Amino acid sequence: MKTSKLFTKTTKNISKEAESKNHEFLVRAGYVDQLMAGVYTYLPLGLKVLQKIESIIREEMTAIDGQEILMPALHPAENWKKTGRWETMDDLYRFTSYYSKSEVALGGTHEEIVSPLAKKFIFSYKDLPKYVFQIQTKFRDEKRAKSGILRGREFRMKDLYSFHTDEKDLNSYYDKVIKSYEQIFKRVGLAEKTYLTFASGGTFSKFSHEFQTESTVGEDVTYICRDCKMGINKEIILTQKECPGCGKTDLEQVSTIEVANIFKLKTKFTDQFKVHYLDEKGRENSVVMGCYGIGPSRIMGTIVEVLSDEKGIVWPKEVTPYQVHLVDLNLEKDAEKVSKALEHAGLEVLWDDREESAGFKFADADLMGIPVRVVVSEKSLKAGGYEIKFRNEDKAEILDEKELVKKIKDYYVK
Amino acid sequence: MKTSKLFTKTTKNISKEAESKNHEFLVRAGYVDQLMAGVYTYLPLGLKVLQKIESIIREEMTAIDGQEILMPALHPAENWKKTGRWETMDDLYRFTSYYSKSEVALGGTHEEIVSPLAKKFIFSYKDLPKYVFQIQTKFRDEKRAKSGILRGREFRMKDLYSFHTDEKDLNSYYDKVIKSYEQIFKRVGLAEKTYLTFASGGTFSKFSHEFQTESTVGEDVTYICRDCKMGINKEIILTQKECPGCGKTDLEQVSTIEVANIFKLKTKFTDQFKVHYLDEKGRENSVVMGCYGIGPSRIMGTIVEVLSDEKGIVWPKEVTPYQVHLVDLNLEKDAEKVSKALEHAGLEVLWDDREESAGFKFADADLMGIPVRVVVSEKSLKAGGYEIKFRNEDKAEILDEKELVKKIKDYYVK
Repeated sequence: MKTSKLFTKTTKNISKEAESKNHEFLVRAGYVDQLMAGVYTYLPLGLKVLQKIESIIREEMTAIDGQEILMPALHPAENWKKTGRWETMDDLYRFTSYYSKSEVALGGTHEEIVSPLAKKFIFSYKDLPKYVFQIQTKFRDEKRAKSGILRGREFRMKDLYSFHTDEKDLNSYYDKVIKSYEQIFKRVGLAEKTYLTFASGGTFSKFSHEFQTESTVGEDVTYICRDCKMGINKEIILTQKECPGCGKTDLEQVSTIEVANIFKLKTKFTDQFKVHYLDEKGRENSVVMGCYGIGPSRIMGTIVEVLSDEKGIVWPKEVTPYQVHLVDLNLEKDAEKVSKALEHAGLEVLWDDREESAGFKFADADLMGIPVRVVVSEKSLKAGGYEIKFRNEDKAEILDEKELVKKIKDYYVK
Repeated sequence: MKTSKLFTKTTKNISKEAESKNHEFLVRAGYVDQLMAGVYTYLPLGLKVLQKIESIIREEMTAIDGQEILMPALHPAENWKKTGRWETMDDLYRFTSYYSKSEVALGGTHEEIVSPLAKKFIFSYKDLPKYVFQIQTKFRDEKRAKSGILRGREFRMKDLYSFHTDEKDLNSYYDKVIKSYEQIFKRVGLAEKTYLTFASGGTFSKFSHEFQTESTVGEDVTYICRDCKMGINKEIILTQKECPGCGKTDLEQVSTIEVANIFKLKTKFTDQFKVHYLDEKGRENSVVMGCYGIGPSRIMGTIVEVLSDEKGIVWPKEVTPYQVHLVDLNLEKDAEKVSKALEHAGLEVLWDDREESAGFKFADADLMGIPVRVVVSEKSLKAGGYEIKFRNEDKAEILDEKELVKKIKDYYVK
């Protein structure tokens, strides 16, 4: 893709609302556009990042036998009235259809939909366990939408729901999801700063779990152990003083962003919606349920918050919109040759072909955060080839075409 | 995928609301579930079909230089008030946020969003042309949601918007989109029954165009010529009596489903949102705009309407949820062997491993509509291998493993 053909441009003009780093960099680099508070358009480069994050999540969910579905955003009020959340969930968008006069909610979560859905297909212990997930747009009437794409009124969510005969089976799948989430955070580049934390389990379980990423803009307070990478949420620090991972008691208090949560719902919703099954002896039992959320758009914002430097974004390699940022300093023919060689090797290339100064183009490359920058200039050709520099390193080197392609290929091979 | 592990089951119980073939077959086969009138969940098999249709559309849009974006569903009322459609568009969902007290619309189309967005990146003739599209969930408060997934209150839509310096450039891209849409209808299996029709162009153009698929459940009336595959919408038959393709006047009146529409908006929205550019001489002009819609979920419903037979669905090969429906009649080991051979060859296999009668399993296979059925039975093994039958043919034949894999591979190679 040539930069001159891109729908977007980088910009220095940014609204005063840009109170967070992710909003500032993502808007300036042309990744997202704010339509209103908490509501964003994903522009071509931003959507590529989001789609890569969602593909990683999809792969990992499929690897633990999740079957993908797509539930609607429009929900009948009766489902929400049945669980009582029509009245108690403050951030549920509720309205009335003009034509049908029926009350409708906009889905902020889907327990009220997936439970009666599961009831249609689960009858016997032979039908269990089952795992379904969706990657979908959710809506929440947030009191204060803020922090860029970290807390939106409209946002992307992956929600997985599991159905089991008993708690033992739920527990074993629950542990599998923890491992799967760890793999996701590794792949999106957040593993180092992300902690598995113990949170309140409500009235049903001793604990639920969250994944919390350390960041100064985080709204949560978490007590962490850097050695075992686990922690405790503030809400339960008074009852649970030891780190569940290693037993340590001198935990460090940090600000964190909640990037995922998993919860043993047990029979809370299956009792309400009468999702029952017959066991081996023909007795009727409630299906046991778990739910597991992770937010692709929030992950994208978190990556920008925790991995950027003062010049701009630094994308981890699996989520970068393009793999190579080729900067051509008035050498179109040579740039085209190396662009073709890179694309021929299966690499995704953004080629900055604009007639701008070197300084301007380098600043844009730093802002946009593609991990590998390649410069084609009179100087580089004189030195024997192309200049390669990684976004998170200072030193650059000159390589010939073959060495260049090999070095970049090797970098992106997992 | 083993049928015994699938989240869904086929069913004979179907609500009385099933007034259309697509609703009946898609619900009975476990492809979709109706949550309320006009609102459906896409279940694992149904979502696979939808995703394949959307991938085809994405590929074809990318091939004509479309850049994918994702605009929000929540829209500020002010954008809609600016164009006057806040008051005039009856099926626009409108409501007020509880917290911010601001009026919001749910996007049923995106001219009001994409026009001011384009204004942020288009300044000069050098920034044109530009093409952006999205594949996204849309909402319309339909007076009467009906015909299964053909006319939903929540549905999937691909909308492409193009921006040009002048009408000549718009016209040339518009013709490119027509070719691209013809390619899409060919790939999703609807080309034979789909006509490019001339419709009213409103006050701006002589014509707009639609793609209309012949079907008895279609809500539109179209006058078609079967030779040149073009037609005229009922609304303009009085002013335009000759087929625009061949000049014929004895056109056939048929019922059709509108599966796509394309429209030269010219400067209707760019004037309202002041989307201007400076030409070579520094003069300010309005950007010229086109919009091009096609509905993936409606296409899925249309395929079921026009290609099914009395036994069930018949999927075209590029959109089938799985490529091979393997039916095992109590021969698990042999079925596993052939399943592995097929998957090793890169084929997607749904393996009906349930302990049910042959008749029950064959009826389900016919209902679900996967193009190729392979049966592993004592009888087939005795005859020298596996029975292969295409969904749209009656005759079956016995092939050994190697022949079987080759025959199916050849069938799916485009």
